[in-house]
Amino acid sequence: MTNTFDYSGAFAAAVGKVRQEGRYREFADICRIRGRFPRALYRGRDGEREVTVWCSNDYLGMGQHPKVLAAMHEALDEIGAGSGGTRNISGTNHHHVLLEAELADLHGKEAALLFNSGYMANEATLSTLGRLLPGCVMLSDELNHASMIEGIRHGRCDKVIWRHNDLADLEAKLKALDPARPKIIAFESVYSMDGDIAPIAQICDLAKRYGALTYLDEVHAVGMYGPRGGGVAERDGLLDHVDIIEGTLAKAFGVMGGYVAASTMLIDAVRSTAAGFIFTTSLAPVLAAGTVASVRHLKESGEERALQHKHAALLKRELARLGLPVVLSPSHIVPVIVGDPVLCKQLTDRLLAEFQIYVQPINYPTVPKGSERIRLTPGPLHGELEIARLVSALDQLWTAMTLKRAA
Amino acid sequence: MTNTFDYSGAFAAAVGKVRQEGRYREFADICRIRGRFPRALYRGRDGEREVTVWCSNDYLGMGQHPKVLAAMHEALDEIGAGSGGTRNISGTNHHHVLLEAELADLHGKEAALLFNSGYMANEATLSTLGRLLPGCVMLSDELNHASMIEGIRHGRCDKVIWRHNDLADLEAKLKALDPARPKIIAFESVYSMDGDIAPIAQICDLAKRYGALTYLDEVHAVGMYGPRGGGVAERDGLLDHVDIIEGTLAKAFGVMGGYVAASTMLIDAVRSTAAGFIFTTSLAPVLAAGTVASVRHLKESGEERALQHKHAALLKRELARLGLPVVLSPSHIVPVIVGDPVLCKQLTDRLLAEFQIYVQPINYPTVPKGSERIRLTPGPLHGELEIARLVSALDQLWTAMTLKRAA
Ligand SMILES: Cc1ncc(COP(=O)(O)O)c(C=O)c1O
Ligand SMILES: Cc1ncc(COP(=O)(O)O)c(C=O)c1O
Repeated sequence: MTNTFDYSGAFAAAVGKVRQEGRYREFADICRIRGRFPRALYRGRDGEREVTVWCSNDYLGMGQHPKVLAAMHEALDEIGAGSGGTRNISGTNHHHVLLEAELADLHGKEAALLFNSGYMANEATLSTLGRLLPGCVMLSDELNHASMIEGIRHGRCDKVIWRHNDLADLEAKLKALDPARPKIIAFESVYSMDGDIAPIAQICDLAKRYGALTYLDEVHAVGMYGPRGGGVAERDGLLDHVDIIEGTLAKAFGVMGGYVAASTMLIDAVRSTAAGFIFTTSLAPVLAAGTVASVRHLKESGEERALQHKHAALLKRELARLGLPVVLSPSHIVPVIVGDPVLCKQLTDRLLAEFQIYVQPINYPTVPKGSERIRLTPGPLHGELEIARLVSALDQLWTAMTLKRAA
Repeated sequence: MTNTFDYSGAFAAAVGKVRQEGRYREFADICRIRGRFPRALYRGRDGEREVTVWCSNDYLGMGQHPKVLAAMHEALDEIGAGSGGTRNISGTNHHHVLLEAELADLHGKEAALLFNSGYMANEATLSTLGRLLPGCVMLSDELNHASMIEGIRHGRCDKVIWRHNDLADLEAKLKALDPARPKIIAFESVYSMDGDIAPIAQICDLAKRYGALTYLDEVHAVGMYGPRGGGVAERDGLLDHVDIIEGTLAKAFGVMGGYVAASTMLIDAVRSTAAGFIFTTSLAPVLAAGTVASVRHLKESGEERALQHKHAALLKRELARLGLPVVLSPSHIVPVIVGDPVLCKQLTDRLLAEFQIYVQPINYPTVPKGSERIRLTPGPLHGELEIARLVSALDQLWTAMTLKRAA
């Protein structure tokens, strides 16, 4: 047949469009060096070299913590590699049970449920809630993460988008809805690109007033805030006010996987009906075992958090002192605005080539056009000397490239 | 407010419905004993005891293979626990690159792409293909896995369901469509509940005749069929005829994760646009490293496959000899039909209580009503003595419970 569809042409066109928008990505091959993180081996076209990683979401370095690694080695020796089944068919084991109990306790909730990623936790839970609650309306912050947007879309219920962190807009939208309809307010605590934090208390007040459930993504906050690492809701004494807390095991906890924590009844409903939970092999026991160790450690130790916050504050102060356009966020995330996609990429290329500093440029559509940036994630393991080196490299390049300084 | 929605009531109702349909599940807590698989520790309400697992999808016992575990221990020591980022932002490392090359080679394709599960590989790839190909029609086998159904649904293009493995029906449906429209025929090689195998060659012929792409889920076949474990398509010399092959790292390879393999252009289009690939932390390097070892081993060693097939044949023969209603599937899967959900659950409860044999009952909606069954997965590590014990236990219970024997 000659009049059939041109598939290669369509795929080439899709990739071409991504290239044209400046969004085409070649992945840097980075091997972290255990025991020396944030140092890593960078494998480029011109060979291998050692770099300092400044854009990892292993915020506290728990991915190389001795307790985490010991628990993983032990689980490998005890149980083996994979779980061999879905949670229902031979794939539940003691590490899953223990981890779900740890996470429920961390958030002061009755129950928790594991997923293979934070992405799946959001997608499966939000879509399932949308399907289970007849006539449900999802009220979604306009800057919510892609996984929440997909979950809400897949729930196939009405969706209302409210302006980012804007309480007046949220209230106006709640007010306009039939009080008898089920409603879910979906939002994040720490927004990862600007590092700003949602007004959780006030959002929960509105939820109560208008009879809505609150769904809070604490992916960038679990392990990082609160006396036991329970997130911003714990720090602000709001655990009881939030109905559903979602988190990842892959950022501050340093491993991989995701979860939600909520009431026993809600968790049981998701557990019993969510396709993305039921029809997939469960989390490898070795990951669950490592995360149990990580969560337990961070419940007791505030040291990593304190050092991380200290380094973030130091980095922000030093950048601001030199007039570099750092966003003085209330969180651990340190964005520095470049404001142009080509210059942003050039900046990170030169950081790598001239200073052995690895940072990814953040361009549209991850952030709005004109706000292209680098996003720095200082951790407890970045020493003060490394911070000074980074600041000096940025200062030199800002001058060399005649980038805009802060007013 | 008193006229707001009753959330707890809605969740309780959802769970109640599941209970009423006999689908409510309590997960058995199973800890495999490494080095002694298929032996495992079963933790029930009445304490702990050792059992033999007969329903794992770690079909070849690779989850405890010394090479796999050694590679994982080594990766933990070298790199640490998690990757710390999405593939684009510090989360690609050498083990991902190597594994993608191994998998592309395994299926004779130009490229492969990793996901955090086989579920995500299906969901993200099918939904992305649906969105990228304007006017696309998905032709889906009626027994396709939930993850394919969700992916097709999320692609929001037209869907045509064809009768299971029915070439005449598929052709009629292809013929009825505009030749110029893009089409994807989505199907599996080994269907996991009946163990039947799709007529891949003929489906590919039809695809060629009608200008469709073929998307083949080999989740239950990778590692298991073909001289290098490339699946049924490899065994039948059809690798060149299938456009997209999807697989899991969590069954015969014994670890966790999923992938698709296809042309460079198609993979690049999915890599560059699929939300479920882009916006999630990459597979933990330790899992990728273990799977590289597993895939490499099974490319060279046919021993595990041969022993598995031998044990499956022996088990089928012995069950048939005693008139137990075994499905004589052409694959490694051994279903035995009970035909009633309550009896099926009783049977598996008694297998556990009286014979220390752990099998999950498979009831509606996973299989049609009236075909409730147990699904046995003999592996190379189930000895002949264990097979004899299982057959004897089933024979005794069939008599004690006056279950129906084969005609
Ligand atoms: C806000 C937010 N939610 C969810 C996720 C997904 O979590 P995971 O990486 O565990 O899939 C991410 C990032 O990856 C995120 O930034
Ligand atoms: C046919 C089929 N496809 C895909 C999957 C999903 O694979 P994974 O367990 O890696 O998510 C499964 C089972 O889990 C399956 O049976």
